[in-house]
Amino acid sequence: MGLDNAATKPHERLAAALDADMTAVNELIRERMASEHAPRIPEVSAHLVDAGGKRLRPMLTLASAKMCGYEGPFHIHLAATVEFIHTATLLHDDVVDESGQRRGRPTANLLWDNKSSVLVGDYLFARSFQLMVETGNLRVLDILSNASATIAEGEVLQLTAASDLGTDEEIYLKVVRGKTAALFSAAMEVGGVIAGQSDDVVKALFAYGDALGISFQIVDDLLDYRGNTQATGKNVGDDFREHKLTLPVIKAVAKADTTERDFWHRTIAKGDQRDGDLEEALRLMDSHGTLDATRADAVAWADKAKASLSVIEQSELKDMLLDLADYVVARVR
Amino acid sequence: MGLDNAATKPHERLAAALDADMTAVNELIRERMASEHAPRIPEVSAHLVDAGGKRLRPMLTLASAKMCGYEGPFHIHLAATVEFIHTATLLHDDVVDESGQRRGRPTANLLWDNKSSVLVGDYLFARSFQLMVETGNLRVLDILSNASATIAEGEVLQLTAASDLGTDEEIYLKVVRGKTAALFSAAMEVGGVIAGQSDDVVKALFAYGDALGISFQIVDDLLDYRGNTQATGKNVGDDFREHKLTLPVIKAVAKADTTERDFWHRTIAKGDQRDGDLEEALRLMDSHGTLDATRADAVAWADKAKASLSVIEQSELKDMLLDLADYVVARVR
Repeated sequence: MGLDNAATKPHERLAAALDADMTAVNELIRERMASEHAPRIPEVSAHLVDAGGKRLRPMLTLASAKMCGYEGPFHIHLAATVEFIHTATLLHDDVVDESGQRRGRPTANLLWDNKSSVLVGDYLFARSFQLMVETGNLRVLDILSNASATIAEGEVLQLTAASDLGTDEEIYLKVVRGKTAALFSAAMEVGGVIAGQSDDVVKALFAYGDALGISFQIVDDLLDYRGNTQATGKNVGDDFREHKLTLPVIKAVAKADTTERDFWHRTIAKGDQRDGDLEEALRLMDSHGTLDATRADAVAWADKAKASLSVIEQSELKDMLLDLADYVVARVR
Repeated sequence: MGLDNAATKPHERLAAALDADMTAVNELIRERMASEHAPRIPEVSAHLVDAGGKRLRPMLTLASAKMCGYEGPFHIHLAATVEFIHTATLLHDDVVDESGQRRGRPTANLLWDNKSSVLVGDYLFARSFQLMVETGNLRVLDILSNASATIAEGEVLQLTAASDLGTDEEIYLKVVRGKTAALFSAAMEVGGVIAGQSDDVVKALFAYGDALGISFQIVDDLLDYRGNTQATGKNVGDDFREHKLTLPVIKAVAKADTTERDFWHRTIAKGDQRDGDLEEALRLMDSHGTLDATRADAVAWADKAKASLSVIEQSELKDMLLDLADYVVARVR
């Protein structure tokens, strides 16, 4: 990634515009992930926090609050809250998925153990909760507690749905709303609530985050089949090898003839895979055009995200959020 | 357990006195552990919730609120909150401890898998959080979010402290406050807060819960060496075999000569155990009187719990709470 090119990416323009606030968020995160008694906690948290995710979710909160004219101090707390919830979820996800890599580094469950990942995740979740209580805003607490429940419910649903050929697009959407969109939408929504915006504006912010999150996750799932390993750090076909049913496969299963259905049943439902299966899966998806159809869905959700912001008056931050929606789908062909 | 004898136990008298409220709590628990989308959630939760724990923690909240003259509806929410936090902790504990049994039944991680236990625990934790937000009381939210952080911190501390011979009584107390007393004290405290009691009363309720929780955990740790397997459902020496450093051993290590220190180093710190080691451990603890000394500590904490309630005016519920403190230590000789 050259610096010139990097400067044009919307999430980097957002980061530049929100630089002072993001510095405050990072300081608050560092302060709150400390533990006087249990040094294992900051070790494990720092491993993940320092790995340099894009901090997309806290940026959404900051951008939303600023775009809505908020001038108080609590958008910093809420942004840190959102990042803590996200980090806690990642720690638990890596245990559940038995992952060995995250953001190009060994996962915490590999470097320490599953126990540490479970318990430090719990700690960060509790800390997120303390941070939001400090805002003293009950509506914000309501939104974030509901989002937390939706996230956990989506993760449990994914456990049973991911290898079940009966999983249709409706169930997929529920899982995606849980695992990704619920935190995106809550991150946007609380920015508007803390700024005292009208219900219409708050609803628009929610809708933007919801649609952006869905688009983001669909693209992630598509990248697993169409990605450039060097750019994404993921190997093509990881989801297939872990026999995870994502949108491109769900669309292919819906169009499958009997032979094709047997193929999906063997490779995904039963998880019995052989040499050449990934290539066959790609060929089947291609023959039904499901990769293109999946990308079209992602574009439609990104368009929906942009349209949601129509009630919000023009500003530099709003333009960046509009560009961000385009960028999310531009990551994949 | 005969019914005659059962009727005299203070937690059963509390259950009888709080019967209508406990029914409401159980209904709320059942309602909130449901999930429209993920049937795995109520399956796993019900396995644990139906196993029939004593519901001690929610009873403390109900007793505290009632004793303080509370007449609103939110003590039910808070009691359910406390039980959800407890249940979530148990689900994660069983994963961390790799346990196979809990309350005389196979654990959820064994019946389903670790994934389900981690994620359903997260779901219950999020649900607990929704429940307390519904009370609309920010002070209650502050208390319970702080308790959640203390619990998680204590669990992480225990990970590293449990097999470290350098763990002294001060560190043990921190672990015990985290794993047990933090929820007991918060359960009592929120009952007083919701009833609008003065700071003095709220402090007294906190102090009772804190000391009761510490006494309760010390007795649990002592029962591991002095318990009656039939009565407790635990095998004598489980903690020793899992090389967990608890108070009786910490006291024995503090009095150990060089040979004895080598013994503890091999069996606990290194976890290298042979036939006859448990008997030798019991002999060493006996020779230094550390089992008696441990019981004396439990009695002292129970006395402290009772003394804490002196600022509260006499009532039937108060008498039951006083008796409960005595009963906690009466469980072990």
